[in-house]
Amino acid sequence: MVKAMNEEFPQPSTCWDHYVSYGETDGMGIAYYGNYLHWFEQARSDFLRKMGMTYSGIENQNIYLPVREAYCRYLVSTAFDEQISIKTGIGKWCRASMYFFYEIYNLSKENKLITTGYTQHACIDQTGKPTAIPEWLKNITRVEC
Amino acid sequence: MVKAMNEEFPQPSTCWDHYVSYGETDGMGIAYYGNYLHWFEQARSDFLRKMGMTYSGIENQNIYLPVREAYCRYLVSTAFDEQISIKTGIGKWCRASMYFFYEIYNLSKENKLITTGYTQHACIDQTGKPTAIPEWLKNITRVEC
Amino acid sequence: MVKAMNEEFPQPSTCWDHYVSYGETDGMGIAYYGNYLHWFEQARSDFLRKMGMTYSGIENQNIYLPVREAYCRYLVSTAFDEQISIKTGIGKWCRASMYFFYEIYNLSKENKLITTGYTQHACIDQTGKPTAIPEWLKNITRVEC
Amino acid sequence: MVKAMNEEFPQPSTCWDHYVSYGETDGMGIAYYGNYLHWFEQARSDFLRKMGMTYSGIENQNIYLPVREAYCRYLVSTAFDEQISIKTGIGKWCRASMYFFYEIYNLSKENKLITTGYTQHACIDQTGKPTAIPEWLKNITRVEC
Repeated sequence: MVKAMNEEFPQPSTCWDHYVSYGETDGMGIAYYGNYLHWFEQARSDFLRKMGMTYSGIENQNIYLPVREAYCRYLVSTAFDEQISIKTGIGKWCRASMYFFYEIYNLSKENKLITTGYTQHACIDQTGKPTAIPEWLKNITRVEC
Repeated sequence: MVKAMNEEFPQPSTCWDHYVSYGETDGMGIAYYGNYLHWFEQARSDFLRKMGMTYSGIENQNIYLPVREAYCRYLVSTAFDEQISIKTGIGKWCRASMYFFYEIYNLSKENKLITTGYTQHACIDQTGKPTAIPEWLKNITRVEC
Repeated sequence: MVKAMNEEFPQPSTCWDHYVSYGETDGMGIAYYGNYLHWFEQARSDFLRKMGMTYSGIENQNIYLPVREAYCRYLVSTAFDEQISIKTGIGKWCRASMYFFYEIYNLSKENKLITTGYTQHACIDQTGKPTAIPEWLKNITRVEC
Repeated sequence: MVKAMNEEFPQPSTCWDHYVSYGETDGMGIAYYGNYLHWFEQARSDFLRKMGMTYSGIENQNIYLPVREAYCRYLVSTAFDEQISIKTGIGKWCRASMYFFYEIYNLSKENKLITTGYTQHACIDQTGKPTAIPEWLKNITRVEC
């Protein structure tokens, strides 16, 4: 997957903007590394919303997308009150799983790319069993793998 | 202070909107009670920004406003993906401390008031010594106590 | 309730020890104010466990104790890697609600008292309706109000 | 690095035990994926402490170990109040960076392995410049790469 990060960013993509909060920084004065995964989640909820869907709407269809793998590469740190933008797209649809890709840009520092990452999600039903990604979900982006 | 919560909300006030994220909910399926204090902080940074100031700008003047007291009253819960609005104002300026007041409204549930709260902040210098609130800071709102 | 904080600490009480983590500190280099509510929760789960019960065991009886009010007074800050101890007891049983009281001591700084606080909990059933605290729950401590 | 995860776990290793808290679970009733990175951090602070060092002690020598990369593979979920154990070791020392490896076991579910992961850390001085890992730090474990 890491290789894929160097390729062109998948389309469609969305951007979710956020001010780094005080509680998200740590003793080094920069955003704590664990909070990036929380930003990724907020950015993918925003992605779905902008694609005309919501994650709770997906759950209402008895489809759940728990994270199976998360990866984050911290290129440059970001500090309190800086405005960042999390770019999000679907990297790949597999049969019963899919990938979200992320790039974070620091809008307060000339839009510098500061982070890349991805999350892999299983597709399961309400009993926890792996299930094929439904077509109506894939239709969000029509990016086949 | 609790009494003061029933009075009219202080002016000027601002509203910071937020979608409740998955990571902010807990096993009951509603926003975890500890996250509200984090929302209060993001709302007061937003308040300062809208008043033409930033909290980091205040720190650059060697003025720090650590929280001395926090209070939150949870009237109604809020769930994942609901859009909430945190109303924020300065309740009171004292000599070397001040109060922020908060009210949270659930925009996804007919703007229902779901939470009230306040934080009391000491005003200290870089050595940690209590110091009188500077006039330039009070001028944000000109609400005397 | 604040008055009650000055009284003697309720018995029985337990202590839950914790090292302040890096992720819990903020740009001031001290523990972020919102994390204290998370510590309170971990300390009350520990209290229940030491009283021979678990919060999940309580939920299995269709009794839920959502927080209705939280209050925290930050007397002295605490820094990364300091070992703190959260003292916890039940302050008061009411008909359909109850109070937990907390005091935090800094074991790395001569056991100094650094925080006091309380949480008020409603007692509800699985439909969300207020319900009288069951006797088996009160029997944890037999402290009547 | 992912390959290395299948090899034998590096020695010495330590185990840091933790009860999954309510605030760490999400609407699915299981621990939120972002919190694992926070557990990794608490586990590596515990590792250093057990090796006779502290991370703050390392910082006092003007050596900082910010995270450059984080990876987490979620094999099985874990729920509220389950006791987990985070096994931690140093996977590799490089010239100016190093790797921590982690495995999480669920003590409440027959010690089942539920998570694997790693973090890569740069070694920098107080000016932020990459610097060779000092010998006194490597001596913690004497595991050369």
